[in-house]
Amino acid sequence: MALCGSAEEHEKLLVRIKRIEGQMRGISKMIEDDRDCMDVLKQIAAASGALRSLGMVLMEDHLKGCVAAAVMNNDTEKEEELIHQVVEVFNKFSK
Amino acid sequence: MALCGSAEEHEKLLVRIKRIEGQMRGISKMIEDDRDCMDVLKQIAAASGALRSLGMVLMEDHLKGCVAAAVMNNDTEKEEELIHQVVEVFNKFSK
Amino acid sequence: MALCGSAEEHEKLLVRIKRIEGQMRGISKMIEDDRDCMDVLKQIAAASGALRSLGMVLMEDHLKGCVAAAVMNNDTEKEEELIHQVVEVFNKFSK
Amino acid sequence: MALCGSAEEHEKLLVRIKRIEGQMRGISKMIEDDRDCMDVLKQIAAASGALRSLGMVLMEDHLKGCVAAAVMNNDTEKEEELIHQVVEVFNKFSK
Repeated sequence: MALCGSAEEHEKLLVRIKRIEGQMRGISKMIEDDRDCMDVLKQIAAASGALRSLGMVLMEDHLKGCVAAAVMNNDTEKEEELIHQVVEVFNKFSK
Repeated sequence: MALCGSAEEHEKLLVRIKRIEGQMRGISKMIEDDRDCMDVLKQIAAASGALRSLGMVLMEDHLKGCVAAAVMNNDTEKEEELIHQVVEVFNKFSK
Repeated sequence: MALCGSAEEHEKLLVRIKRIEGQMRGISKMIEDDRDCMDVLKQIAAASGALRSLGMVLMEDHLKGCVAAAVMNNDTEKEEELIHQVVEVFNKFSK
Repeated sequence: MALCGSAEEHEKLLVRIKRIEGQMRGISKMIEDDRDCMDVLKQIAAASGALRSLGMVLMEDHLKGCVAAAVMNNDTEKEEELIHQVVEVFNKFSK
């Protein structure tokens, strides 16, 4: 199986990931510069939100792609497995 | 104000952040290699968990450091403000 | 539109909801009895987890039911709308 | 140990809990009436948000009450234990 979504959508995901990588470097720098705790915490929370939001974009692509394909193929077993995985990974996002 | 926690604790935070940066690069590579959607989603969820857990470590240092210091100084206004910020940033972690 | 899932599954949802209602009454009683803060917080967190888990069960039924039906009917617009709603409501669960 | 916060604050917590109990009864009714899946899911998400928000109010009272008291008493062991519990229970809120 491959990645759901168009090449253009993958490009957008890569841009978002680069941005989160940049946020991580920014947080490292804040720690090295001994910056105020709460400011660092807010940046970590912001990066965490960005990562979660990235996950939700890919999740939506996955539902519209792989999962919808399994439904169309009348592959009930595959469909149930994929849907169960989606709900499971949803749950992991806040742990 | 500076960062709560000892130099040793800051070092540990930096190691964790480097690891999350590495996870982000791994996820970029998975997207470029057109890997299976669910595998990418699981890695994003894992990085999200690692980031949240990093936030919780710093939060605990902050409560034991800055917040406890405000309490000791009988600076009630500062204390209330810091505690309110802690609860607010807690809330941001899942948004 | 109606509720996804079988009558048997609805019955199970109702049992879970009754249990959460019971947990809420238990928490009220703990507050009236002036019980230890952390014990009350743990019960609130447990009820919150139970409610979230109830939501995930219904979410899974909804994906297997309504959403799969829209896919089968080749109703792309409906399908995209339903999938978007699923991701949106998922996001609400942690706010 | 007793519950942090004033009698007035406890009263407010009880009002909020009653409201969540009412939301649970409303959700039961929606399921019995075979209402639209997404409408039920939105109500579950709303109740989940209300419960989490209730937890955050009590958490803030607890930090200003029990935890601040341990800090004032120079009871470092107690303080560290309480702060660790706060971070742990916070993590439970999204599981």
